[in-house]
This record gives sequence, C-alpha cells and structure tokens, in this order.
Amino acid sequence: MVEMKTIQKTIDLLSEEASLQSVFHHKRNEEPMPSIEKLHEVVRTLRQILFPGYFGNSDVREDNVRYYMGVHVENLKRLLTEQILAGLCFSSAEKASCVKEAENICMQFVERLPLLREVLVTDVEAAFNGDPAATSRGEVIFCYPAIRAIVNYRIAHELLELGVPLIPRIITEMAHSETGIDIHPGAKIGRYFTIDHGTGVVIGETTIIGNRVKLYQGVTLGAKSFPMDENGNPIKGILRHPIIEDGVIIYANSTILGRITIGKNAVIGGNIWVDADVPAEAKIIQKK
Amino acid sequence: MVEMKTIQKTIDLLSEEASLQSVFHHKRNEEPMPSIEKLHEVVRTLRQILFPGYFGNSDVREDNVRYYMGVHVENLKRLLTEQILAGLCFSSAEKASCVKEAENICMQFVERLPLLREVLVTDVEAAFNGDPAATSRGEVIFCYPAIRAIVNYRIAHELLELGVPLIPRIITEMAHSETGIDIHPGAKIGRYFTIDHGTGVVIGETTIIGNRVKLYQGVTLGAKSFPMDENGNPIKGILRHPIIEDGVIIYANSTILGRITIGKNAVIGGNIWVDADVPAEAKIIQKK
Amino acid sequence: MVEMKTIQKTIDLLSEEASLQSVFHHKRNEEPMPSIEKLHEVVRTLRQILFPGYFGNSDVREDNVRYYMGVHVENLKRLLTEQILAGLCFSSAEKASCVKEAENICMQFVERLPLLREVLVTDVEAAFNGDPAATSRGEVIFCYPAIRAIVNYRIAHELLELGVPLIPRIITEMAHSETGIDIHPGAKIGRYFTIDHGTGVVIGETTIIGNRVKLYQGVTLGAKSFPMDENGNPIKGILRHPIIEDGVIIYANSTILGRITIGKNAVIGGNIWVDADVPAEAKIIQKK
Amino acid sequence: MVEMKTIQKTIDLLSEEASLQSVFHHKRNEEPMPSIEKLHEVVRTLRQILFPGYFGNSDVREDNVRYYMGVHVENLKRLLTEQILAGLCFSSAEKASCVKEAENICMQFVERLPLLREVLVTDVEAAFNGDPAATSRGEVIFCYPAIRAIVNYRIAHELLELGVPLIPRIITEMAHSETGIDIHPGAKIGRYFTIDHGTGVVIGETTIIGNRVKLYQGVTLGAKSFPMDENGNPIKGILRHPIIEDGVIIYANSTILGRITIGKNAVIGGNIWVDADVPAEAKIIQKK
Amino acid sequence: MVEMKTIQKTIDLLSEEASLQSVFHHKRNEEPMPSIEKLHEVVRTLRQILFPGYFGNSDVREDNVRYYMGVHVENLKRLLTEQILAGLCFSSAEKASCVKEAENICMQFVERLPLLREVLVTDVEAAFNGDPAATSRGEVIFCYPAIRAIVNYRIAHELLELGVPLIPRIITEMAHSETGIDIHPGAKIGRYFTIDHGTGVVIGETTIIGNRVKLYQGVTLGAKSFPMDENGNPIKGILRHPIIEDGVIIYANSTILGRITIGKNAVIGGNIWVDADVPAEAKIIQKK
Amino acid sequence: MVEMKTIQKTIDLLSEEASLQSVFHHKRNEEPMPSIEKLHEVVRTLRQILFPGYFGNSDVREDNVRYYMGVHVENLKRLLTEQILAGLCFSSAEKASCVKEAENICMQFVERLPLLREVLVTDVEAAFNGDPAATSRGEVIFCYPAIRAIVNYRIAHELLELGVPLIPRIITEMAHSETGIDIHPGAKIGRYFTIDHGTGVVIGETTIIGNRVKLYQGVTLGAKSFPMDENGNPIKGILRHPIIEDGVIIYANSTILGRITIGKNAVIGGNIWVDADVPAEAKIIQKK
Repeated sequence: MVEMKTIQKTIDLLSEEASLQSVFHHKRNEEPMPSIEKLHEVVRTLRQILFPGYFGNSDVREDNVRYYMGVHVENLKRLLTEQILAGLCFSSAEKASCVKEAENICMQFVERLPLLREVLVTDVEAAFNGDPAATSRGEVIFCYPAIRAIVNYRIAHELLELGVPLIPRIITEMAHSETGIDIHPGAKIGRYFTIDHGTGVVIGETTIIGNRVKLYQGVTLGAKSFPMDENGNPIKGILRHPIIEDGVIIYANSTILGRITIGKNAVIGGNIWVDADVPAEAKIIQKK
Repeated sequence: MVEMKTIQKTIDLLSEEASLQSVFHHKRNEEPMPSIEKLHEVVRTLRQILFPGYFGNSDVREDNVRYYMGVHVENLKRLLTEQILAGLCFSSAEKASCVKEAENICMQFVERLPLLREVLVTDVEAAFNGDPAATSRGEVIFCYPAIRAIVNYRIAHELLELGVPLIPRIITEMAHSETGIDIHPGAKIGRYFTIDHGTGVVIGETTIIGNRVKLYQGVTLGAKSFPMDENGNPIKGILRHPIIEDGVIIYANSTILGRITIGKNAVIGGNIWVDADVPAEAKIIQKK
Repeated sequence: MVEMKTIQKTIDLLSEEASLQSVFHHKRNEEPMPSIEKLHEVVRTLRQILFPGYFGNSDVREDNVRYYMGVHVENLKRLLTEQILAGLCFSSAEKASCVKEAENICMQFVERLPLLREVLVTDVEAAFNGDPAATSRGEVIFCYPAIRAIVNYRIAHELLELGVPLIPRIITEMAHSETGIDIHPGAKIGRYFTIDHGTGVVIGETTIIGNRVKLYQGVTLGAKSFPMDENGNPIKGILRHPIIEDGVIIYANSTILGRITIGKNAVIGGNIWVDADVPAEAKIIQKK
Repeated sequence: MVEMKTIQKTIDLLSEEASLQSVFHHKRNEEPMPSIEKLHEVVRTLRQILFPGYFGNSDVREDNVRYYMGVHVENLKRLLTEQILAGLCFSSAEKASCVKEAENICMQFVERLPLLREVLVTDVEAAFNGDPAATSRGEVIFCYPAIRAIVNYRIAHELLELGVPLIPRIITEMAHSETGIDIHPGAKIGRYFTIDHGTGVVIGETTIIGNRVKLYQGVTLGAKSFPMDENGNPIKGILRHPIIEDGVIIYANSTILGRITIGKNAVIGGNIWVDADVPAEAKIIQKK
Repeated sequence: MVEMKTIQKTIDLLSEEASLQSVFHHKRNEEPMPSIEKLHEVVRTLRQILFPGYFGNSDVREDNVRYYMGVHVENLKRLLTEQILAGLCFSSAEKASCVKEAENICMQFVERLPLLREVLVTDVEAAFNGDPAATSRGEVIFCYPAIRAIVNYRIAHELLELGVPLIPRIITEMAHSETGIDIHPGAKIGRYFTIDHGTGVVIGETTIIGNRVKLYQGVTLGAKSFPMDENGNPIKGILRHPIIEDGVIIYANSTILGRITIGKNAVIGGNIWVDADVPAEAKIIQKK
Repeated sequence: MVEMKTIQKTIDLLSEEASLQSVFHHKRNEEPMPSIEKLHEVVRTLRQILFPGYFGNSDVREDNVRYYMGVHVENLKRLLTEQILAGLCFSSAEKASCVKEAENICMQFVERLPLLREVLVTDVEAAFNGDPAATSRGEVIFCYPAIRAIVNYRIAHELLELGVPLIPRIITEMAHSETGIDIHPGAKIGRYFTIDHGTGVVIGETTIIGNRVKLYQGVTLGAKSFPMDENGNPIKGILRHPIIEDGVIIYANSTILGRITIGKNAVIGGNIWVDADVPAEAKIIQKK
C-alpha cells in the first residue's frame, strides 16, 4: 500500500506542468515525429541507390538495375518526405503549410543524387589510394567508417542547403554514433576527401574544406572562442571554424581552432594545437 | 569423417573443466541474467518518462500525459526490478534473499525521478547555451550525444548509490558505445553540466565535478598512477581522479590526471597533459 | 507530371553505365554477399562458445554445457562457412572453386578455438588486474569494451591468417563502431593485453605488440609516412607501424608513429608524439 | 541470356495496361491502405480495453487500470482512425474530404465501448454456462474461439453501422480465418449469444438473431436463392437470411436458408436442411 | 475540446469497478500470465524434439543429434515450466505454493516424451497409409494438418493428466485455429489414429477412441443433451460423449452424439446424425 | 540431482537410433529445407505481382508499375528457386543434380504468370457477381477467403504440373489453415470458379471441375472407397474423385463421393450425400 502511494505521488510529480515545462514536446495533432529508425531506413535506401549491389540482399545485376533503382527511389521519396515534414513541423511550422514544401524539397534532393554519387566516387578513390591497408575499392565502400560518415554528411549537407531543419543533424549524429566521426552538416567539404580511422574527428558548423584534404583520427576543426551576447551566452551563427585549403593533410589528434586558414598543401603533424594561420606548403610538427 | 572427429574433439576441449575455469558463468537455477537488450528498454522507457513526447511514437498530449506517465512508470518498475535482481544475483547473492531488496531499490529509484529530471533540465540548458550551432532545446534533447550520455550516467549513478552492482556500469557502457563518452557511474557530477561533441571523453570513478562545468571532446579525467599491492596489482578503491570545481572549461583532447584540483572557473586549453593542481581562475594553454 | 519526369530522368541517370562504373558491385549468380548482420551473429555465437553462460539467454550449467557447446559450434560452422565463402567470392574468385576452401578454413578456425579462449583468459586477467574500478572478472567479460574489441580482433586475426579476405576487416570494424577501438586484423598482439577505456585507440596493420602491454584511450600506433609509387599513391604492404615490446604502457592520447621500437617495459606518458625508437625501461613524458 | 529475355518479356506482359485492368488498385497520392497487420493491432488493443489483464503483458491492477485504459484508448484512436480513413479512401472517396469524417466516426465508436463490453459480458456468460467443459469465465475469455469471433463481429457491426466501408468485413474475416466462424458484420445479433466449437458456422448479411441463442459448429444461416437482375447476376441488398428468435438452439451442421423465421425457443437438431418457417417451441430432428 | 471530454468520460466508464466486474483479470504481483506466443514456442520446441530435422533451421545430423536434443529439452523445460506455473496461478493458486509443483510436473512431462513420440509414429503411419495422395511419411510429418492437431492434442492430454489447468486447452485451441480440428484435451485417443482433411472435426471432452480409428472432415463426436442443474445450467463433468471402439471409420460431416458406443470396425457413412449405439462391424449410410 | 539424471536419461532415449527411426529427417549437407515462412513470402510476393497495389505497402502507380513488377519478379525468382530446390532435395534427389532443374522450373513458372492472372480475374468476377454482399471487386481481391484459397491453389497446381514435389502441397495447406478450404494441388479447375464462405470445403486430388462452377461452405468432393493392395493399404494414384461439369452449383455441406459425374448446370442442394452420377440440368435436394 505504501508502495502504491509512492508510485502515485511520483507519477503526479512527473505529470505536473511545472516539471514538464522544458522537457515536454507538444506535438500538434497527427504530426509525424522525426524518427531515428526511419532515418536509418532512409540512409540504408540511399546507400542501395548510390552503391547498388553492396547493400541490401537484392539480386541486382546489369539487366535489372533500373528496376531496383526505380523502386529504391520510390521508397526513398515516401520515407524521406515524411521525415522532412517531421523536421519542418518540429521546428514549429504548421503541418498543413508544410506538406507541399516537404514534397518539393524531397524532389529537389532526389535530383541531386547523380551528382552526389559522382562526388562520393572521388571520396572512395581518396580512401583507397590513401590507405596502404585497403585491398579494393569494394572493401572501402563496404566497410570503411570514413565512407559511412562522409555519405551521411553529404546527404545531410544537401538537405540542410534545401532548408530542412533538424533532420540533417540527426543524420550526421547517426554516423557520429557509428564511427566516432562528428561532421556538422553545415560544413562545406570539397571532392576527394578522406579521413583515416576517424574516431574522434570533429568538423564544426562553419568549417570550409577544399579538395584532396586528408584528416587522421582525433583531429578537431573547432571554434576557439565564442563572442558572448549580453546574457553571457555564445552568439549563434558566427564564422568561427577553420578554412582548410586544397591538399592539406592533418595528422592524428591535432586541434585546429578558430576562423584561421591552413594554406594549400600544408602538413600539420599529430597532437598539435593550432590557432593561427598556417601558410601554404608549410609543415608543422610538435615540439619535443 | 575426419571433419566430424575434429569438431568432436574441439567440442570436448571447449567443454573441459580446465578450459572453462575462468570463462564460465555459473548461473544458479532460474536466476535472471543482466540483459543489455532489456537495459536498452529500461533506458528507452526512462527517456519517455523524463522527456515525454520526444521518444516513442505515442500521441502524448497535455490532457493524457498522466496516463502515459502511469503506464511508463509501471513498465519501468517491471523491467528495472528484474535487472536490479539480475545484478544482485550476478554479484553472487542468492536470488531468494534479493527479491525484496530489488523491489525496494527500484521503488526508491522511481521516487528520485522528478529530481533527476530537474537536474537534466539544467544539463539541456547548458548544452543549448554552450553550442552556437544548437537551434533549439528540442534538438538538444532529441539528438545531442552529450545529453544521451549524461542521461545514462545520471541514471546509473543513482542506481550505484542505491547499491546496485554491475547494472550501472552496463548502462554507462551502453552510452559509451553510442557516443564515445565514457563516464564511470561512480563519478559525482554537479548541475548544468555539458560536453561538446564528446567522442573520447573519459571521466574516472572517483572524479568530482562541480556545477556549470564544460568539457570538450577527447578530455580525460583519469588516474595518474596506481599504488600497487603486494602482488603488483593496483589497489582498488583509492581516490585517484581529479576534482573539477564550479565553472571550469577544459578544451579538446586534454588529459587531467590524478587526485588534483582544477580550481573554480579555470580554463584548460586543448591537447595538454595536467597532473598538478591548477588555481582558480587560471588559464593554461599548450606551449608552442 | 513534371515530378514524374524528374524522377524518371534521375532514375535513368543513376542507372547509366557511366555513373555506375565504380559504385556497382557485380555479384555473380547466387553468390552469397558478406553480411554485417550475419557476422554479428557469428560473433555472438563465438562469444557464447568462448564465455558460456554470459551471453545468450540459455540455461547453460555444468551438466549440460557440452550440449550447448555442440549446438553453438554447429551454428558457428554453418554461419561462418557462408561468410568465408562470401569473402572469397567478393575478392573475385569463382564460387564453385571456393566452396571446399571455405569449409576447410572454417574447420581449421574451429580447431583453434580452445587456444583462442586460453589467450583471451589472459586478456581478461589483464583488464581486471589493471583497472581498480573493476569489481569482478565477470564484469570485465560482460561489459568491458576492451574485451569486446580484443575478442573481435583475435577472431579476425585468425581468419586473416587462414587467408580469408574482407571478412576479418568487417569484424574488427564492427568492434571499432561499438567501442571506438580500431585494431587492424593484420596486427600481431601477444598475451595479457589490455586497453583502458579505449575510445580512439588505433593499431595499424603491421604493428607488433608483445606480452603484458597496456594502452590507454586515444593511443595511436600508426604509420609515419608512406613511400609513394610512380603514380603518387602509397605503396601497399610495407612494414610501417611500431613494434611494442613486452610490458610497455602507453598513456592516453599518445601517438606512436613509424616502424620504430618501444623497448621492453618502457612507459610513454599521455599526449605525446613519438616517431623514434625508445629504449627499454625508459619513461617519456610531455614537456611542460 | 535466353532467361533474361523471358523474364523481361514476362515483366512487360504483367505491366501491360490490358493485363492490369481489373487487378490493379490505383491508390491516390499518400492515401493510407487498409492493413490487415494494423487491424490485428486494433483488435488486440480493443481486447486489452475490453478485458483488461487478460491480453498484452502489462501489469495492470486496480490501482493503475485507469492509466492503462487511457493509453490503450489513445492508441486505439490513432490506429483505428487511420484504418477508417483507409476504408473510406478505398471506397473511392477523396482523402481530403474524409479526414474529419474518420475522426468523428472513431470518436463515436469509442463512446460505444462501455456498452459493447456490457453486451460481451453476457456472451461470456452464455459460453460459460452453456459448456460443461468450461472451467472458468477467465478460460472462456482467454481462449474460446466463439468469444474471439463474437468480439470481432460486435466491433465490426458497430463500425458498419457508423458507415465505415470494407474495414468491418476485414475484421470479421480475420476472425473467420482464426476460428472458422464466418459472421457477416451486417447481421444483427442479440445479447447472451454463444457458439459451441464453431468451425464452419456461417451467419449471412441480413440475418437477425434474438437474445439467448446458441449455435453449434457447422451451422449455416444462409440465403436460399438470389433473385437475378437482367444480366443474370444476383440483386444486391435483398433481405435473404433467416430470423432466429429468442432462445433458439441449432445443433451441429444444420443449414437454415432463406428469409424464414425460426420461432422462439425452437430447437433444430443436427445435419438438417431447413428452408421454411419453424414455429415457436418446436423441435425438429433429422429423419432416419 | 468536446472530443477530449468524450474520451475522458469513456475512459472513466471503462475503468469503473462495476464495468470491470467480470472482465478484469486480477493478476497477483509478478505472476506470469499464460502466453499464446510462448506456448507456440513450446510447441515448436516439442516438434523439434519429436521430429528432429523437420522443423527449425538447424543442421541436425546423426553425429550431433544428442547436442540438439539436449539443448531443445533444456529450452523446453524453461519455457514450459513458466507456462505451467502461469496455468496454476491463473486458476487461483498462490504463486509461491506452485513453483515447485510446476517444476515437478514439467519434469514428469519430459519423461513421457519418448513414449509420446512412439505413439505419434503410429499416427504418422496411419495418415500415410490412409491417404492415397500422401507421397511420403516426411510429407505427412511436415505438412498434414491432422498430424499438427494430433501432436498438440497428445501434448495437451499429457499435461491435463498431470493436473495442469488452462494450458492444455490453449494448446488444443491453437491447433483448432490452425487446422479447424477441435479435440478437447480431456478426450482419450488410442494409437494409429488419423483424420483426413480435418476441418470441422470436433471431439468432445469425455470421448473415448480406440486404436486404428479414422475420421473424415466435419465429423462431430459430441454431447446430445446436458442434464440441467437447479439454475437451468448444464451440470459439468458428466460422461456425455461417444465411445468409438477399435477400427471404426466415420465419413465426412457425420454427427455422433451422446454417451453411445460405436462398436469395433463399424463404418459410419457421411452426413449422418447418430445418437444410439451402433453394433460392431455395422455399416450405416444416409437414407436417400 | 535426481532431476538431472532423469533429463539425461530422457535425452538419451530421444537420441537413440531406434526411437529416431521414422521421425528423423536426414538432410544432406547444406541442402535447403522447405520453409513455411519462406513460402509465405513467396505467396506474398506473388500476390503483389498478380494484384499490384493491393498488397505490400508500396506506392505503386501507373508510371512506376514496371519497376515494381521487375523487382518483385526478381525476388520471386530468388525465393521460389530455393524452395523448389528444397522440394526436390526433400524427395530424395541429390542437391547437385537439381540446382539447374530448380532454376528451369522457376523460369517456366514465371512465364506462366500472365496467364495465371488472366484466369484469376475470372475467379474474382465470379466471386463478385455471385455474392450479393460483395460491394466491389477490390473487396473481393483484398479479403475474400475464396480468392486467397484459389490463388494458392492455382499457384500450387502450376508447380505440381512442372514436377515440383512437396512444395505445392505446403502451399495449399497454408491456404487450408487460413481459410478452412482444402484444395489438393492435383485437382483440375476451370475458369470463373468460386466458393462462398468456404470453411470445410474439400476438393480431392483427382477432381476435375469445369468452368463457372460454384461451391458453398462444407462441400466435399471426395473419394468413396479405396481399392486396397495386398497389404491392406489404399492403392495410390487411382482416379477416385468426382468430375463436376460446367455451370454446376453445390450448396452447403453436401458430400459428393467417388469418380462420378455431376452433369452440366446441375444444382445439388445442401446437406446431401451423393455417390452416383447426376444428369445435366438436374436439381437434387435433401429429402424431408
């Protein structure tokens, strides 16, 4: 009996308006909710579209690839439109006003898929050429965490550019959880990009990365400090992450901070803290 | 035929008492076993209780929130009591003697939930204010790895304080696997705590952290050395991790080792190894 | 109508031979494909064999352990043979020529299981003795990420030695994703090996590690530079990772690069970049 | 190569407009489709509401029954509204015009649940009293096929009365498949109704059954003949099934055909074919 | 707003004590509930034990059959003991007093398995010999509904004899639902028994069937009338179903009612209603 | 201890060669086993091919129907070829010799799909026109048990004609279990065939049914007697079931037995036992 009262009281406390204040998501009637499970399905479907034959247990061959492409793209449309809509609703728009927008965005995203694949081919190439332990491009596509993280990032980046809230971030966080590589969907990253091993890599929201850049595990491309507003909180939206120019290599566990520029083909050694511009072609290593 | 003999022989070897000696868990009759799948369900249920409307696909609204709270709390009780019992049995107590204890502990844990939520609200606030890239508190609750890790830690810490063996550690390891953030359930952590990005963060068993502390990815709050016992093994239970006072910030990949104190509002730069006290308000950065 | 045309055009583009060139896996008729889900099942089964009573919800006891061993080994054979075959086919051999080979390899692998368990017992011992926070060997087996990663590595290493392509790498990547510990299956690692916390650890393909070695989180045993071939790509297969001798300890976030030797019982402090031989018994720490 | 052409040709044939003519369901954009899986969930939820504690693995007790009721009713609303909408759309109405209607119907259906339960209690009573093999009312609720079929029928009948197309029929067909009892949702059936064993029972669309009626397995309450229209097809909607008055018992495998009346308390023996009125209190048996 | 009040009111009505009176199952704390899903697993496991190699996807062979037998029997024990306990608790005994009893009953049931298999072999033989369309005993075991129903009946009958409430009935109802064959677990049935096609067969609680009996679809072995008690309800437990002696054949859709005896080797034609003794060797057919 | 010995002994008994004699399926190495689950998937896929838009949750429309057709046919090929192979192996052929045969049979079956659909359209038409309660052809396709049973029968009949053992029987038994309609795959059935309600219908192996025939629930088209061989067992393969000519109607629960002919357009009333030829255009009803 005592037990029942305790439980009862706890339930009451947990249901009080005051307690619920900032932890309760007030969903409007019948609005879809972003779903991590369904976004996993979106990404799985996209990988089947981008790299046919590698993922899913389908029997895809030259003579039937168009059938599969057709069906996967249809599935994608259905799944992704709902999640885009969920993202728009979550960010406080009314559902009715967003249905059409969600469909339009999804359509535009689909149109960009051939180009997306083209860029990803260069990333696969970079990972294969850059890793003496890689035995084939197929191995890279099938099991390299860097490719997994970069695929998610490139998908998320397109969606963010098309104005989708929340969903891009969830997609990159999914890769973060699986690979330990944390790329903000807002970052801009060129072609032929690769990351070796990857655990602990952080690439911040306003980072700009050129072509043919290679990072190693534990590299942070972060912000140095945040200008505060009158309430002592960081001001949002300021350009605060590095610019990494074409051909740069950054070795393991180095930390590059602030809106600085690492010039073309520069090489940054491991375990270094860099918060100032580095000229093109420079090589920097840890002091002993 | 040869094959069968080989298999047969291998099975015999693997079933020999000598080989099984230290790898075989001798469960007593009908005792429940800790289950990672069920603990995932426990955590999922707790997140539905703590942050209603965000997790699960339920249609929770103001006018029905008490129903959901009631049902989720009931589910929690059933699931968690079994796991607490499993933890007690695993640690070599007899089942019969633990059934009542498991129920009592679970009841006490449930009573602490309103307070747990109150503290977590301050953590969400810290994550939102501390990250210029965060667009809403909802986004933070829904997909920030730091919140995921801190929720698991705060749950696990309560259970450890209530005397539950093993289970708290499994719960923090679940978050470790998902986020790369490894917080020992024994650590004591104040309010308004946050971690940015998080991969590679380690917070040791005897660490004490004050209020309003912020850590970045790759920060270790670890032990420097372990006094050995006569057999050359580390002595267990010694206070060996740092004390981090209120308002401290520690940047990416720094390593703080030993029972030292980082004083109030101190700022530790990135990629540094610290094994001595740091005074309040100090700023320390890597030498170039 | 416009929408339909867009979709149609995109599907056509995605199905064009040119676009598919390097992203399409041409599976031959009826060949099995490596499956991450099934390899998870392989590993789950192996853990049930190696550590009976800890994993799975079976009621295994002394008097029925042989039944379970028999059934688990049979399951393993069925599951693993298929995946080995998938690995052989993926790497471009014809299926017909590999069926027998896959069965042979699987049989040899099974024969090595008793020995594998013997070595893993020493790893469990090392983790338990090396961590003052560990309360029992059971806890170490059940939830330590280091053990999870090392089990996968030791399985993968045996398979690689038996000539299986791709599969070993997938198995270590599975552990990498779960634990943040990235051990290449080609590395050679002695007995009584442990890793504390583990997130961010990288152990490269040609690394050699002796007995009783301990690593902390964030440690990289990597390559310093890659000799390039005439096309500017790294030459594959060169010995390029460190040799770590018996009894060495390497603290958090240090980076050891190149074919150097860290001598017996040497201690490397945290956050250091080492690219030259270290003599036996030496202690190296970060300069302040 | 020949194989590919065959397949290709078959796919073409199967996709031709002529072949698809009467087998292709043209769903309008984004309309939900009736789903047998989801209707199973609807019925499961309704059974949890109507008979709390018997179905589902919940820990429902006196002191928490309102929580469960609240959550189950919410689930029901969500699931059933979608299926009602699917039924309305299937029957060719436009989705937009039906959303509100579906919600209204669902709401009215929910309001009738207390009454529905009240009537079902009399059916349980009838089954328990009428079967010497029944050991408790709980057994009847938990595993008697008659109760399962009658629950589905009473649900379906209410939905049909509220104007829902298709869905009621699917719900009674679900029970038909599970129990071999085929009750058309259009039939009108009084209180305290039971069926023994049940396999093969058929109760047609325009049947009227009074209170306290009992049927045995294999009884058909069917139509004798169908007036044909000018095309030689049966005219739809004619009253063509029997009226069974209060207190009638019909034994196994008898067939009652046409718009006849079986008078109060009449008893019809087994294996008989009846196509004319039977007076009240009469007893009819097979001739030998 | 109106909607909310309606729902609220309905939930209140559905939670009122009066409404819940005879539809609410009051489970005592932590008691297991009979579970149709788990009983399906029990039956699946029993079929794997009784007919190894036919069911489940295991690779069972002569040289490993004992391993499988061992593991399946262990699983059976765990699953069935819980369900027996659930049956005992459902029928109002206190859990504490039944745990030991459930274990004992399960043990006795397991001991009877070899004999159970022996009898089932004769049933398979009867089905194979009796059906000109049967192509092998394997086909009979694998897909004949009669075998499925008889297996469930023989299991249920043993459990009933061992004093288990409710569970036996659920097990035969499972087969009833799958096959349309309704055999009460209380019936006594000899060896070499078969049923052709089977849909609609009913065999009542106190039926006694000899050896080598064959029934066709739609045959009822039922009760003719029930002596009433003072309240007008049938008296429970009276011997009211037929005795069918050795070698009898009963053709499709015939109905045999009351405690009559159908003598040795009698043949009953189809569509007949029999409510008096039939002498041995007699042949009865429908009058024209 | 006693318990362990009992279990041990039972396992021994159950594993003895004598006990296993006729209940053990000796699968040869790596042969697939017929799988009811996978055959359900086969039938589901076939229904998606034959009636696109009704089954599965795909978004199939005119402009993408060929993609879906292509993918479903590919899936069918993969799933069905394996099951055909399993059927061939089960019936004692060596796997190696059957792989090619299984592929050929599957290919021929696929070629017949367009024709199969054409015939099924006439069955749907018959069900719709023949049932005054049917509101649309869509309802008939989606939920009429007769269509479900006839689809399975027509699939199974084609496979049997192509020489597949066992599998056809399993497919019709699946429908038998779901609908209570038991049609042997060997029966020959014309176009425009329908069954009303259906529970209890039995159509034997050598039955021949013309066009435009209608059956009601409980109708048996069976064998009257079986000529015995020297061992007293029925001789297999004899023509022993009725021939039902074009346009015949047979009402509920009638039993038609033996190799008799029911002439064109004859009408057989309910609950009758017929074992002699019936002339064309005749009407037969039960005597009173």
